[in-house]
Amino acid sequence: MTRRPRTRGVTIEDVARAAGVSRQTISNALNAPYRLKAETLERVSAVIEELGYRPDQSARSLKSGTRRIIGYPTPVDDPANPNPLMGGFLEAVVAASGEVGYRILLVRPQPGQSQEQALDELIAARTVDGFLLSDILRDDPRVAHLTGAGFPFAAFGRTAPEQPQSWVDVDSVQAVIELVGMVVARGHRRVAFLASSSGQPWMDDRRDGFLAGVRRHGLAGQVYSPGDDPDEIVAATRELLAGRNRPTAIVAGGDWLALGLYTAARAEGLEIGKDLAVAAFDDLPITGFLQPALTTVRLPLRRIAEALISRLLQIIEDGVTPQAGLLLPGELVIRPSLGP
Amino acid sequence: MTRRPRTRGVTIEDVARAAGVSRQTISNALNAPYRLKAETLERVSAVIEELGYRPDQSARSLKSGTRRIIGYPTPVDDPANPNPLMGGFLEAVVAASGEVGYRILLVRPQPGQSQEQALDELIAARTVDGFLLSDILRDDPRVAHLTGAGFPFAAFGRTAPEQPQSWVDVDSVQAVIELVGMVVARGHRRVAFLASSSGQPWMDDRRDGFLAGVRRHGLAGQVYSPGDDPDEIVAATRELLAGRNRPTAIVAGGDWLALGLYTAARAEGLEIGKDLAVAAFDDLPITGFLQPALTTVRLPLRRIAEALISRLLQIIEDGVTPQAGLLLPGELVIRPSLGP
Repeated sequence: MTRRPRTRGVTIEDVARAAGVSRQTISNALNAPYRLKAETLERVSAVIEELGYRPDQSARSLKSGTRRIIGYPTPVDDPANPNPLMGGFLEAVVAASGEVGYRILLVRPQPGQSQEQALDELIAARTVDGFLLSDILRDDPRVAHLTGAGFPFAAFGRTAPEQPQSWVDVDSVQAVIELVGMVVARGHRRVAFLASSSGQPWMDDRRDGFLAGVRRHGLAGQVYSPGDDPDEIVAATRELLAGRNRPTAIVAGGDWLALGLYTAARAEGLEIGKDLAVAAFDDLPITGFLQPALTTVRLPLRRIAEALISRLLQIIEDGVTPQAGLLLPGELVIRPSLGP
Repeated sequence: MTRRPRTRGVTIEDVARAAGVSRQTISNALNAPYRLKAETLERVSAVIEELGYRPDQSARSLKSGTRRIIGYPTPVDDPANPNPLMGGFLEAVVAASGEVGYRILLVRPQPGQSQEQALDELIAARTVDGFLLSDILRDDPRVAHLTGAGFPFAAFGRTAPEQPQSWVDVDSVQAVIELVGMVVARGHRRVAFLASSSGQPWMDDRRDGFLAGVRRHGLAGQVYSPGDDPDEIVAATRELLAGRNRPTAIVAGGDWLALGLYTAARAEGLEIGKDLAVAAFDDLPITGFLQPALTTVRLPLRRIAEALISRLLQIIEDGVTPQAGLLLPGELVIRPSLGP
């Protein structure tokens, strides 16, 4: 059924001669473009394209011993309402890996398979050169498994100190400390934090940032866990807002918690941005459409993806595992919900 | 750096004996689960899991000649605001292919590569068994290229009559005819359609559905193309709404066009659902949050993905190319924007 694509007879030597560079430079342009200066890469790429040179992928794979494929265990999502953070992260990862000649294979355990068996299957079949993991939990079994197998991986989210430090994370603690500072600068003294109740490490970081922030200003901030169901969140935050000593400013640990807070505030006759200052975390695309638009923290998804791919390739291609994790700053997006 | 995962010494014969079925049934459970009855699959899967049987993937690939990987050229997106339709489609595709033991490799041309070269590279390296294409344009070069190469593919969006009919699409024409019927049943006579100006086949289908719908009711519906830039859309629709014979009902060819219409109606002091009936297409997650919530057409993403994977596997595994395309109905989601 398949037909071999036509070969054009252009060799790597032809390209090197035409571009006036070494074979190694052509090879780098194709396999490790990040090693070349931008102007060299541009010139070489133009010649490659002009001559229609296409390297023999199977020979290249044999020689380098890599398939140039990264496995990514993708979280289960809802097709009718996909998580935009995960979609944005995947887009950033596809772009960052494409830049260095790698592709992303989406991995999900097949019927009857555990997460670990799905990883093992791909390792045994030599389908992938390494894995990218996201949504890292405490004692994450995938991290433990790949550490035990000695197989290359990079993680969006922190690994334990005794595990490979090939992780990248957002400095949520610092970002929420800054949010609290902005709330306090606007004169608020009764401030509260809304947390989900599910014990994710990133939610704990955001809560810790809140507690560190209020301590710095000598305040006693309250932490509430209104549950994870949308109706529960609305009911619990309505109760909070109806109390005599209701907070005048609320930091939510995630934008979806703030959505419930918007509904609750409307129901209690409170105007957000005037009667109540609100800030949250994640900068989901919907936050700009809310009335008023929501102050939140944007994750630097492109930088996260580039750092993860770069770290993973260090392990795969150079055998070098990073000695320390990389913590990137979140970006505060100030919108009217915080008040004047 | 890698270590071979430990082998457990469990053979396919051991599993077949324990489950009381043939080797072929075990093989089917792993490679073609859709060929087994649900109860058989469940029993066999339990035994496979209990005994910890893991097939030799490389041997299996050699024997069947397939890698069990489907290439998907993924559209370029914005990490800060990913297209939820594409995210939902990808999730549905990952789930549907996982059910039958296949995985999705995300494909994007690498620096200096054309779309066709990216496809050829994967064909030449035998990395994938077939391709899944989406966002099919008229005279789509990817469809032409894979047709010429005789390589298996399935397409979300129609191919030309002389090309393989391995496509699945949504019956947008019929869905918009139904929307128009609902608008007319509410007493509207001055109805208009908002189209993007970019000439995508799916937008043309929706416009054709509108024109067929108004014809059925003896009306002369107007078609407007307010442009593709959000500010342009708002300006053009404000002009439309400010006219003397302004339409009392508008069908938008996509939810993002309706977003501009909401802004324009507010600016012109018109209340959607009362002064103006609005319906659109796509059911983006944001449509339920709009005030009032938007009547729209939902794409059956799970059914589309399952049909695409099933058609592609027919070609890959059985060598059978479908003789006709498959048109699936869209699902009308009636919300308050249409009025009482």
